[in-house]
Amino acid sequence: MSDTELKSYPMQNYTLIEREAQAEEDSSVSARMQRLEKQYAETGMRRSVEGVMVVMEHGFPHVLVLQVANGFYKLPGGYLDPTEPDGEGLLARMNEQLGVPLPDGGYARSKDGKDWTVGECLSIWWRPNFDTFSYPYLPAHVSFPKECRKLYMVNLPVKKTLAIPANMKLIALPVYEFYDNASRWGPQLAGLPYIMSK
Amino acid sequence: MSDTELKSYPMQNYTLIEREAQAEEDSSVSARMQRLEKQYAETGMRRSVEGVMVVMEHGFPHVLVLQVANGFYKLPGGYLDPTEPDGEGLLARMNEQLGVPLPDGGYARSKDGKDWTVGECLSIWWRPNFDTFSYPYLPAHVSFPKECRKLYMVNLPVKKTLAIPANMKLIALPVYEFYDNASRWGPQLAGLPYIMSK
Ligand SMILES: [Zn+2]
Ligand SMILES: [Zn+2]
Ligand SMILES: [Zn+2]
Ligand SMILES: [Zn+2]
Repeated sequence: MSDTELKSYPMQNYTLIEREAQAEEDSSVSARMQRLEKQYAETGMRRSVEGVMVVMEHGFPHVLVLQVANGFYKLPGGYLDPTEPDGEGLLARMNEQLGVPLPDGGYARSKDGKDWTVGECLSIWWRPNFDTFSYPYLPAHVSFPKECRKLYMVNLPVKKTLAIPANMKLIALPVYEFYDNASRWGPQLAGLPYIMSK
Repeated sequence: MSDTELKSYPMQNYTLIEREAQAEEDSSVSARMQRLEKQYAETGMRRSVEGVMVVMEHGFPHVLVLQVANGFYKLPGGYLDPTEPDGEGLLARMNEQLGVPLPDGGYARSKDGKDWTVGECLSIWWRPNFDTFSYPYLPAHVSFPKECRKLYMVNLPVKKTLAIPANMKLIALPVYEFYDNASRWGPQLAGLPYIMSK
């Protein structure tokens, strides 16, 4: 990432603790599509946001991905409320997923008061139909996409404690791992080497 | 391309004329690799630059690619001299390839004095060895890559005349054409939908 000159730190700068399991909201692909259809009928196109956090290990950028119990990998993030702005909403979802809840409400920040911040939008994916296909462009003649999913860089502070749900693992994968391997990682993760290659 | 808000114009804004054929510098892959090896011995890592020009057709960004006589597709651009800066060098290569030479030297600009300009770097590719494999990251433990190839956005003025070598065609391909199709277009072009998806 040339111009912005993002600073990335080693994984050992981040303390991982455990928090309660977070069940997947849908038990199957068809349940997921039904929920999307229901949401769409109520509030229109779903807006999702996901965060790309980068750590530096042996000179290579690594992306933090969540491995869910069933072996599925995903970026942290989630759905936005219809009026929720991207950046605020993404940090809200990331805190709900990986933040350390404070007894009085809210989430812990690192000791120097710095916290994660949302950086540039890396890519935008569109889901034209109520099915599993998404594309990094809005396909021709699709006037009513069902979901728009944005990947944002999330800049980590020098140190931070992350609370990992008991049914998930947070793993740092080198960017090259995803290259030319959409069959294993899915198209969004497989696209990361391209969008991070500058 | 969100923040920079690039303006793209329809293909019909650009006048295509013919100029003399430009032979491919190498007749085979092995000849190409031998030339790279020779260059590397003389001046070290080769630096290449390529230009991504975008036109807008029926609401979709299209990328201008050169189809060489043998059916091979490539972006315009070429090799830099060892001390030539990226931007200047890219415009020099593009003028040598697609510019309209003026009788007194130099190349024609559009009537309003505007011309193409080099925009942001879209991706950087590395060739670790004297072979055909390149990657959008510098692979581990490669201290002496043989070639570094940068793709830059080249912003077209509202109108311009381009002179296409007689043995080539300039064609506008919709960005989605390249998606998930590295086997047909090669990895660099197949990466365009990802890096242009924002
Ligand atoms: Zn290593
Ligand atoms: Zn590693
Ligand atoms: Zn159309
Ligand atoms: Zn078209």
